[in-house]
Amino acid sequence: MPELRKDILTGRWVIISTERSKRPDDFRPAPGTEPKAESLTFCPFCPGNEAKTPPEIMSVRKPGTKPDQPGWQIRVVPNKFPALQPGPPPPKKTKGIFQWMEGIGVHEVIIETTDHHQEMTELPVEHLAEILKIYRVRIRAIEEEYHHQYVQVFKNKGKEAGASLSHPHSQIIATPIVPKRIKEEIYGAERLYRNHFRECAFCRMLKEEMEIGQRLVYKNKRFAVLTPFASRFPFETMIVPLEHSAFYRNISDQDTLALAEALQQSLARLKVQLSDPAFNLVLHHSPNPQVSDKAWPGIENYYHWHLEVMPILTKVAGFELGTGFYINPVPPEVAAEYLKNTTFSKS
Amino acid sequence: MPELRKDILTGRWVIISTERSKRPDDFRPAPGTEPKAESLTFCPFCPGNEAKTPPEIMSVRKPGTKPDQPGWQIRVVPNKFPALQPGPPPPKKTKGIFQWMEGIGVHEVIIETTDHHQEMTELPVEHLAEILKIYRVRIRAIEEEYHHQYVQVFKNKGKEAGASLSHPHSQIIATPIVPKRIKEEIYGAERLYRNHFRECAFCRMLKEEMEIGQRLVYKNKRFAVLTPFASRFPFETMIVPLEHSAFYRNISDQDTLALAEALQQSLARLKVQLSDPAFNLVLHHSPNPQVSDKAWPGIENYYHWHLEVMPILTKVAGFELGTGFYINPVPPEVAAEYLKNTTFSKS
Repeated sequence: MPELRKDILTGRWVIISTERSKRPDDFRPAPGTEPKAESLTFCPFCPGNEAKTPPEIMSVRKPGTKPDQPGWQIRVVPNKFPALQPGPPPPKKTKGIFQWMEGIGVHEVIIETTDHHQEMTELPVEHLAEILKIYRVRIRAIEEEYHHQYVQVFKNKGKEAGASLSHPHSQIIATPIVPKRIKEEIYGAERLYRNHFRECAFCRMLKEEMEIGQRLVYKNKRFAVLTPFASRFPFETMIVPLEHSAFYRNISDQDTLALAEALQQSLARLKVQLSDPAFNLVLHHSPNPQVSDKAWPGIENYYHWHLEVMPILTKVAGFELGTGFYINPVPPEVAAEYLKNTTFSKS
Repeated sequence: MPELRKDILTGRWVIISTERSKRPDDFRPAPGTEPKAESLTFCPFCPGNEAKTPPEIMSVRKPGTKPDQPGWQIRVVPNKFPALQPGPPPPKKTKGIFQWMEGIGVHEVIIETTDHHQEMTELPVEHLAEILKIYRVRIRAIEEEYHHQYVQVFKNKGKEAGASLSHPHSQIIATPIVPKRIKEEIYGAERLYRNHFRECAFCRMLKEEMEIGQRLVYKNKRFAVLTPFASRFPFETMIVPLEHSAFYRNISDQDTLALAEALQQSLARLKVQLSDPAFNLVLHHSPNPQVSDKAWPGIENYYHWHLEVMPILTKVAGFELGTGFYINPVPPEVAAEYLKNTTFSKS
């Protein structure tokens, strides 16, 4: 059983894998060899290999085809090597001053397409919208059935971004506690709402960004793509709904189409300008309403969900690890200028 | 002039380099080539090349030899490409809702040895103690002369850890504000002191760790090397003074010797067990007393300086970036067991 452990000073939690613990040898590549990537001949996410994943949780598939058989377009499966064991939220425990809980949560994989080489930018926009609807479906299901406090949806693309399989996929990890980064945003937004703006800080930021225009990469009727004022990473972007909304679980079908368009615009521009970089994509949204309603009454007024896209172009080094400061060699205004003026053809 | 910018939601600051801004091309290696490492034939930190760095700030050198000439053993120089421009703390500014300040601070390099290939583990312990004394000297000087709020001492070893030059060196970046990570530790320690322990949380932790013994890697009369209970990274270690002390600036000459010994023990064990991994080393200590005395009265009672050593063995991916959670595949108890039972000869 993995463990969740808390750093009592900073409130940061970590997941400690106790079952598949690695030995020092596992981190030492044999001399002259690269750490082994996936085999080139076998992919557990390709059609025909359905039996190589745990039984599917849901799928979008042709009528008449059976679960765990070919015929699917998108497939959701439990992670075969989950960071957290499946189950309901565990109780908090203490050992002296140390706080921990059993590593129980949810870890799912969304196989985005049958085509091993078809990236998010190349999917028909309707297909990407289906993936974004599945995010919504799984968030609701995990919140309602398992009562976990937070459902983190994310995607690692490329080895440098931490992806271990190259077949296009997203992941979901639900945790029994609200992670620190999310709490920080919520508390920050609440404080700004109460003491300063009397409106959602994201809505206020959007208004100012629209006026300034310098960091706006793309906009459609429902979403804006921005390079954040205090970007941590070169060419980092943020996709924000123009209309205030705290809960991704409430996104309409129609808005998933507009979001798919904005996400593709964002990723396609990065791909052209930076030669298909590795990237991380993360969704930030309000925690499970069962928790939010009690812990943060009024969160629907001041928190605002969004996507963050972070290309992996620089290394995080000692200064960043020590301080939490980031050094970004590309001003977001410059990044926005390049991204805005990208020409690409969308199939 | 670089800029310091604040993320108003989370309070996180970033350094935006506006002068040497990179273009997308800079992140695209030409096909088939590795990003260029330093030239194999020229190192600006090697003796004889003193003119290739800015004039030295201080050095340990043979009597009778001149600054910026050979004859030194340890040399401190301004960073030729500083993350922050040198100068006194700048005022905070606002543009609409956005908060920023001019990117002014201090960025120095400590060239640890004349030998391009002599790593910290291979230095005579007295030599390493001299480096640790220089950390103290520079912290005091920067605090007293420039009044910056926080002086971050760190070391990136290896390309994977963000080092751009392989000649052994440490770095110092002083910032006009106290970084988030340090504030979190201070506020956490203060809260635990006031509401729970009535003693320093680090002292309490040390006591419990000594009793448990499972995460203790090494101990001498003055310092303990531990794998933290909630380790973020495999084989992460923490070097903690056994006697309570909030300010690294107060370390005695004698204690730098004991610290050098503990640091070498720590690094040598990592080197043997993990085949000389890249690592980051960071010092966490109390901010400039000019600031601490006002912002955190009593900090000398509840904060406790320490070193963190983080080998680079895994990739930080979307889940970590999104949540601030870390997934660590090696329980610290297992890491401690390996590190404790490492045999190595110290020259």
